[in-house]
Amino acid sequence: MALIVEKTTSGREYKVKDMSQADFGRLEIELAEVEMPGLMSCRSEFGPSQPLKGARITGSLHMTIQTAVLIETLTALGAEVRWCSCNIFSSQDHAAAAIARDSAAVFAWKGETLQEYWWCTERALDWGPSGGPDLIFDDGGDASMLIHEGVKAEEEFAKNGTVPDPHSTTNPDFQIVLTIIRDGLKTDPQRYHKIKDRLVGVSEETTTGVKRLYQMQENGTLLFPAINVNDSVTKSKFDNLYGCRHSLPDGLMRATDVMIAGKVAVVCGYGDVGKGCAAALKQAGARVIVTEIDPICALQATMEGLQVLTLEDVVSVADIFVTTTGNKDVIMVSDMKRMKNNAIVCNIGHFDNEIDMLGLETYPGVKRITIKPQTDRWVFPETNSGIIVLAEGRLMNLGCATGHPSFVMSCSFTNQVIAQLELWNEKASGKYEKKVYVLPKHLDEKVAALHLSKLGAKLTKLTKEQADYISVPIEGPYKPAAYRY
Amino acid sequence: MALIVEKTTSGREYKVKDMSQADFGRLEIELAEVEMPGLMSCRSEFGPSQPLKGARITGSLHMTIQTAVLIETLTALGAEVRWCSCNIFSSQDHAAAAIARDSAAVFAWKGETLQEYWWCTERALDWGPSGGPDLIFDDGGDASMLIHEGVKAEEEFAKNGTVPDPHSTTNPDFQIVLTIIRDGLKTDPQRYHKIKDRLVGVSEETTTGVKRLYQMQENGTLLFPAINVNDSVTKSKFDNLYGCRHSLPDGLMRATDVMIAGKVAVVCGYGDVGKGCAAALKQAGARVIVTEIDPICALQATMEGLQVLTLEDVVSVADIFVTTTGNKDVIMVSDMKRMKNNAIVCNIGHFDNEIDMLGLETYPGVKRITIKPQTDRWVFPETNSGIIVLAEGRLMNLGCATGHPSFVMSCSFTNQVIAQLELWNEKASGKYEKKVYVLPKHLDEKVAALHLSKLGAKLTKLTKEQADYISVPIEGPYKPAAYRY
Amino acid sequence: MALIVEKTTSGREYKVKDMSQADFGRLEIELAEVEMPGLMSCRSEFGPSQPLKGARITGSLHMTIQTAVLIETLTALGAEVRWCSCNIFSSQDHAAAAIARDSAAVFAWKGETLQEYWWCTERALDWGPSGGPDLIFDDGGDASMLIHEGVKAEEEFAKNGTVPDPHSTTNPDFQIVLTIIRDGLKTDPQRYHKIKDRLVGVSEETTTGVKRLYQMQENGTLLFPAINVNDSVTKSKFDNLYGCRHSLPDGLMRATDVMIAGKVAVVCGYGDVGKGCAAALKQAGARVIVTEIDPICALQATMEGLQVLTLEDVVSVADIFVTTTGNKDVIMVSDMKRMKNNAIVCNIGHFDNEIDMLGLETYPGVKRITIKPQTDRWVFPETNSGIIVLAEGRLMNLGCATGHPSFVMSCSFTNQVIAQLELWNEKASGKYEKKVYVLPKHLDEKVAALHLSKLGAKLTKLTKEQADYISVPIEGPYKPAAYRY
Amino acid sequence: MALIVEKTTSGREYKVKDMSQADFGRLEIELAEVEMPGLMSCRSEFGPSQPLKGARITGSLHMTIQTAVLIETLTALGAEVRWCSCNIFSSQDHAAAAIARDSAAVFAWKGETLQEYWWCTERALDWGPSGGPDLIFDDGGDASMLIHEGVKAEEEFAKNGTVPDPHSTTNPDFQIVLTIIRDGLKTDPQRYHKIKDRLVGVSEETTTGVKRLYQMQENGTLLFPAINVNDSVTKSKFDNLYGCRHSLPDGLMRATDVMIAGKVAVVCGYGDVGKGCAAALKQAGARVIVTEIDPICALQATMEGLQVLTLEDVVSVADIFVTTTGNKDVIMVSDMKRMKNNAIVCNIGHFDNEIDMLGLETYPGVKRITIKPQTDRWVFPETNSGIIVLAEGRLMNLGCATGHPSFVMSCSFTNQVIAQLELWNEKASGKYEKKVYVLPKHLDEKVAALHLSKLGAKLTKLTKEQADYISVPIEGPYKPAAYRY
Repeated sequence: MALIVEKTTSGREYKVKDMSQADFGRLEIELAEVEMPGLMSCRSEFGPSQPLKGARITGSLHMTIQTAVLIETLTALGAEVRWCSCNIFSSQDHAAAAIARDSAAVFAWKGETLQEYWWCTERALDWGPSGGPDLIFDDGGDASMLIHEGVKAEEEFAKNGTVPDPHSTTNPDFQIVLTIIRDGLKTDPQRYHKIKDRLVGVSEETTTGVKRLYQMQENGTLLFPAINVNDSVTKSKFDNLYGCRHSLPDGLMRATDVMIAGKVAVVCGYGDVGKGCAAALKQAGARVIVTEIDPICALQATMEGLQVLTLEDVVSVADIFVTTTGNKDVIMVSDMKRMKNNAIVCNIGHFDNEIDMLGLETYPGVKRITIKPQTDRWVFPETNSGIIVLAEGRLMNLGCATGHPSFVMSCSFTNQVIAQLELWNEKASGKYEKKVYVLPKHLDEKVAALHLSKLGAKLTKLTKEQADYISVPIEGPYKPAAYRY
Repeated sequence: MALIVEKTTSGREYKVKDMSQADFGRLEIELAEVEMPGLMSCRSEFGPSQPLKGARITGSLHMTIQTAVLIETLTALGAEVRWCSCNIFSSQDHAAAAIARDSAAVFAWKGETLQEYWWCTERALDWGPSGGPDLIFDDGGDASMLIHEGVKAEEEFAKNGTVPDPHSTTNPDFQIVLTIIRDGLKTDPQRYHKIKDRLVGVSEETTTGVKRLYQMQENGTLLFPAINVNDSVTKSKFDNLYGCRHSLPDGLMRATDVMIAGKVAVVCGYGDVGKGCAAALKQAGARVIVTEIDPICALQATMEGLQVLTLEDVVSVADIFVTTTGNKDVIMVSDMKRMKNNAIVCNIGHFDNEIDMLGLETYPGVKRITIKPQTDRWVFPETNSGIIVLAEGRLMNLGCATGHPSFVMSCSFTNQVIAQLELWNEKASGKYEKKVYVLPKHLDEKVAALHLSKLGAKLTKLTKEQADYISVPIEGPYKPAAYRY
Repeated sequence: MALIVEKTTSGREYKVKDMSQADFGRLEIELAEVEMPGLMSCRSEFGPSQPLKGARITGSLHMTIQTAVLIETLTALGAEVRWCSCNIFSSQDHAAAAIARDSAAVFAWKGETLQEYWWCTERALDWGPSGGPDLIFDDGGDASMLIHEGVKAEEEFAKNGTVPDPHSTTNPDFQIVLTIIRDGLKTDPQRYHKIKDRLVGVSEETTTGVKRLYQMQENGTLLFPAINVNDSVTKSKFDNLYGCRHSLPDGLMRATDVMIAGKVAVVCGYGDVGKGCAAALKQAGARVIVTEIDPICALQATMEGLQVLTLEDVVSVADIFVTTTGNKDVIMVSDMKRMKNNAIVCNIGHFDNEIDMLGLETYPGVKRITIKPQTDRWVFPETNSGIIVLAEGRLMNLGCATGHPSFVMSCSFTNQVIAQLELWNEKASGKYEKKVYVLPKHLDEKVAALHLSKLGAKLTKLTKEQADYISVPIEGPYKPAAYRY
Repeated sequence: MALIVEKTTSGREYKVKDMSQADFGRLEIELAEVEMPGLMSCRSEFGPSQPLKGARITGSLHMTIQTAVLIETLTALGAEVRWCSCNIFSSQDHAAAAIARDSAAVFAWKGETLQEYWWCTERALDWGPSGGPDLIFDDGGDASMLIHEGVKAEEEFAKNGTVPDPHSTTNPDFQIVLTIIRDGLKTDPQRYHKIKDRLVGVSEETTTGVKRLYQMQENGTLLFPAINVNDSVTKSKFDNLYGCRHSLPDGLMRATDVMIAGKVAVVCGYGDVGKGCAAALKQAGARVIVTEIDPICALQATMEGLQVLTLEDVVSVADIFVTTTGNKDVIMVSDMKRMKNNAIVCNIGHFDNEIDMLGLETYPGVKRITIKPQTDRWVFPETNSGIIVLAEGRLMNLGCATGHPSFVMSCSFTNQVIAQLELWNEKASGKYEKKVYVLPKHLDEKVAALHLSKLGAKLTKLTKEQADYISVPIEGPYKPAAYRY
């Protein structure tokens, strides 16, 4: 795709696949609104007072229908928004088109190259001469990372004129990041400093992004306040668990139509994502085997009747392999070679390095047969037997299906909206330092409460005597901070 | 689509959507072959002796990837094949293209009109001047019904010159059938008699078709032998149950992306299809309510923790409605009016009259908004609130997804192949009269056995003493005919 | 226990463990009545007309609380009843006491010797000089078998004076049967002929008993009509399946307190009983492995995510072994020797020869340590490692717990009552020959219907149009005879 | 029971129900040892060095078979032990007998009166003239509470001569506590000060006890260090969840034999205990309705397909009611009056005031019919309809069954042993202040690891590169403190 920014008649910038899909996107957005009561409550509760008036928000988060409802919640609260996706395969082109046409500046399409991906990220961060965004929505931390790397490089450059060397890394993503920064230094050696200076804070969506933030906090290199939305209970224990329980089989079925019942499925990792995946596969009639490094999670798996083994033990007998670890090098090409013909290999953890895609792509004589987009059969020359890799090792639920369903994303995104409101409201108060924060429990409980009536659920009310007896306020919060749910 | 028969370079007739999808179809057929061990075993066991040599087979059965593997099993056994789909939405165009190009005469595409549907059926039955097929594969009984109606009309016509009146019925399908027969009488008043005379027999796939056959047997109007494949255990207790358990959520997710967890789902009917649907929805986290007329099935539902109520009781609180009854008028437009906004209504039973589509379409002021093909939102003028109807009331797993997965269809289709072999082998023996037969239990057990090793299952062998103790042969069959599994 | 018949003040005979438990038994009977709506409906529907007036009924069926409600339903309908248990461990002494005191002649206690068991059976069949019972309730067929063997021996004796030789068999049960018959020949060489001549018919409760009856029917040796209650859907698909799903874990927990979650459990056989057991163990968090001889049942197991292997494959790694086959020699002492220390071995199929108890008891140097009644640890001398055998290999749910719960037994027993009524009503009509019959479907459906309202279930009613469309009467029966549910 | 301390031949004190059950207890203890790998590992790892040599430990914790293995682990590590139960119904008399005979001073029996209960608690705390214990094992905090109340009263008495007035409270437990303390003041007004002064610390087992400790910490009244074992993951997420999933149906079945399938069950509270109960009931085929005050837990319930309503909504239609809240007044007598005949009401939360037992007992005209110990039917005069209350409102899994199974208690108790070792090792270091502590994560993970090999589970090992990538040590701990599992 030619990387040229387009403009709507109103002058708003965008770059999407096909603007003619905007009507279709709008229809699906309207359906999703009914399924996203938390976001719609935010619109009705906060919309009238326009609390985000004047705020520029940049988002780097899968440009899906659900995200569209989120973006229009932000604009309904007064914000101005620019958006890119945080994954090359996760955009839904009709959602992008509808938003680009109606609500915000969007730079995202399904099937970006890495080069295109980072171009989109740059565009979303580029608010023109007056600097960057006031607030960032991040998912996986790429936007935050770019700013941190940019600031670091600008400091180096200011100090001793050195520029980043893209060849200093083998990570193809990072090579592009360094190239962008290097090129940027030529035109504006203060670009990322200006962005940093304006930035009020970031809210981060996932485990992986949060881990990066805590590392920066520990190293003392974090440049702005961050709210860890991932660790809200209504995010990590809902989206990660119930979202994946829904979207893993969805992705498997759309990509391969394979019968799950009767199959042997290996789930690598038994955190929230792994728990959701294992539950889905077991319920669909697969025999599930879990691999784990953590004895506590492993013991949980056994209590659910799941066998806990090493990948080595089962690599040649299983039919489906799912990585959920957030780690790297979980399934190597040497493992894939030993798998049964047409074994399915996919990742729903975070980055594509959970599966050794590089090893696979560079394996001598390997043949790639694309069944359909995001569904490839890789045939090894020795055995003439193949494996099926989904979404090129990237998030299969987004690459092969449409990601998590609206309802559970409403929980996650309502946390995000609350986090953004909090950062913006407190921008001048000094409440938030350059640290990582989680939302207080009463807000977490509020997010849950906003989603109950849609499901017909009715809460019980404590009496004063009961509340006193267990020493909580009648209206909550009801649990200590460390409660595990 | 212009209804003109096309021809391959080899002269074989076809009519499909897009021949350029043949390569894609071929790739998916190759994947499916690995998942269909029963059919592949038939090829290796029977292929060399070409037992279907000389047999002309007409099939009227969803033209999917799985059916493609079935068709190529029949041709591998020597048969010549013509095919149409038994549902206007169930064809997969890439499967149709691959078969049309490589193996058999195909007349089928996704999204036929009723007119086109019956044109395709006629083409599949039309083997030229020398009459019709030797064998029929039927699913729902449309091909058989057409022949029976044709023969009946020809007799009337011969007797007293009367022709069928399409206006004598309000059923739009039947109107077309009568028109076809009426028009046919003008060109060849013996057309259906010739077809009937040549026909060795039919094998029928589903509950609905089987019911029609038994009715004709009882009335003494059945014109040829029929094998009821539906009631093979390895068909009805597998495809109906486990197939729907897989394909119901698949269809829901592809059509609507709706989160199933937390929703109230109503399953109308708790036969094998209903059991599979209820299991799938419950496992996905829905609260499932069953409606039933049969107290035994109702009691089974309660034993699984499912609430059994009437549609009336829950019509205004449920989120998802699924009909699985094989009956008509299960959900009426008066019910749909009372549903929640965006309630989902779909059918996985058999015909589209389970849902009162006619009532809906003709409701005064109703507005149809097509979200995407097979997913329509119907808005009632009184409430401005809408419901979402899948696949226009037809089989949603075929209309919105890709039908049952290959593995379970391999069970069903292996029964079909065995039935066709049996009819063909015994064509001259008089073994089969004009009645409905089921396959003997040892063949049913054989079909199961052919599918076990793919799943790594190992059977236990009886000793002679044990076999004598329970009075069965060591090699089976192991159960009395009435055993329910 | 001294085998002396005792009498109540009213002169009714009995032999139970402890008459002082009658009050406790009565309390539990009253609780059970609330859970047995089918039987209570029989009392209110039929009680006033006393249709069993004059009928003598002998029952050979676990003397539990549920059976007590059954017996008192029979007496409420006018019958006179004598009862024994069909299993040495299955009686509940408080139930026996209450019935002996209040309602019927009972000969049963928990923990009979084989000698005592057959003495009780004889007492239940002995109605004094005027012959035997009019009707028999059988469970497993022991009462029927005794009569058949008796008649056969009397014929031999009349023909050539030979008497049965108890040493002609190694089966300890059968040795006693032959002894009883041999001794009987001395006092009354027509005893069993007289019983047979009076007998109107038998209704049989279980798979095993039914199999015996069909064999006799095939051999032409069946001496009286029999109704196969086992194959009523509301019996075999409820009691066998849901009953065992409840009572297997109940028995395991009462006997061993072992945590089921995390364990590897082997279920031998995947019929209705095996399906119930496997479901219970899986749900409790065990990893379940199934052994099967029948490929269809094996394939069903795989579809539920259960691994199908041979006993050999898993004998040394599993923690819990359950036999459900109705066959013999399923787990041999050579298997038991190879099991893990404290592996649990139990039988919920039918006879105790599913487990090689004889091999175990006679194993050289084996040591039996009784933890508590029905829970024995058997230690092998070579390894000093032991296995835990429940209920001496007999039905563990009756030996270690209290059998199936009342509600599901109400389904089974309502079928029994209906069968007895049918036999008695038709005693003079010649409707029933010396064959095995099943109850007609409308009665099966009636049994189900009687149990629905207790669970709050509401049935949907067919319209006339719908009933016609699917060709069933509005009021049922709704399914063809061969329907599998 | 006459409250007289007895002595073994070796002079150790005890008071148990029946010393003749010691052999039976020993057999079951030996079985349990095989199921408690964590405790047995403690014996083999720490036994040789006798780290608890010289420590006096008082335990107030259900005197079951599992606790017996715990006690003998403590003595194997060198400790001297005195023990009482923390619940009047939870003792297993054969366990108490075996321990009293072989290992430690025990004061406990099944079915204590409240008077007896507190007498036992006092005996367990009474180590003679030299003061109290060095360490306390507490469950629910009764032992800790007695000491705190005693110290407070002694201070009041010293200050102004006032003594506690038992009539100042209506809580019958607390009346006895005050009486004991008042009477104690007469003989030794420094008794509790001496106990407090010697005490190194307490480890607490349950949510309820932990809550009391944190309240005292907040109020500044905590008199000694405490380790909160309840909040170890391997305790609260295992024992509470999987333990109750096992023992709730166990208790229901032993107490009532009721069929769970088909019933409507209400679970009040959806914390870990409620989650385990709801899962067990759902899996057994009940329709489960949850009541909750906390919107997050409520939303979790809906995601599992459970309906969330208020007790009011369902009180008159449900069959089984289970309280799991840790709160009071959850089911009131006014609720019980409205229940269906023979509805079952039970508590598996903590104290018996979850159910309004006082209201029930004092309801005018109510009739209590004891079916068997711990199973009472209470009949209301207005309706002559009754409800069934288990274990008099106390913990039904301990009162009606045998509590949690050994394996899961091994997780909990291994945490306890580690906590006691930690307190004792650090007694002089000042590491632990008068605060509440949780065990560090690496010990939690160690407890899990000790239980994996028994279940055949195999852990995956991180490579150095992977460990660095996710920033954890190769050998763990693997998760941040706040991780929720």
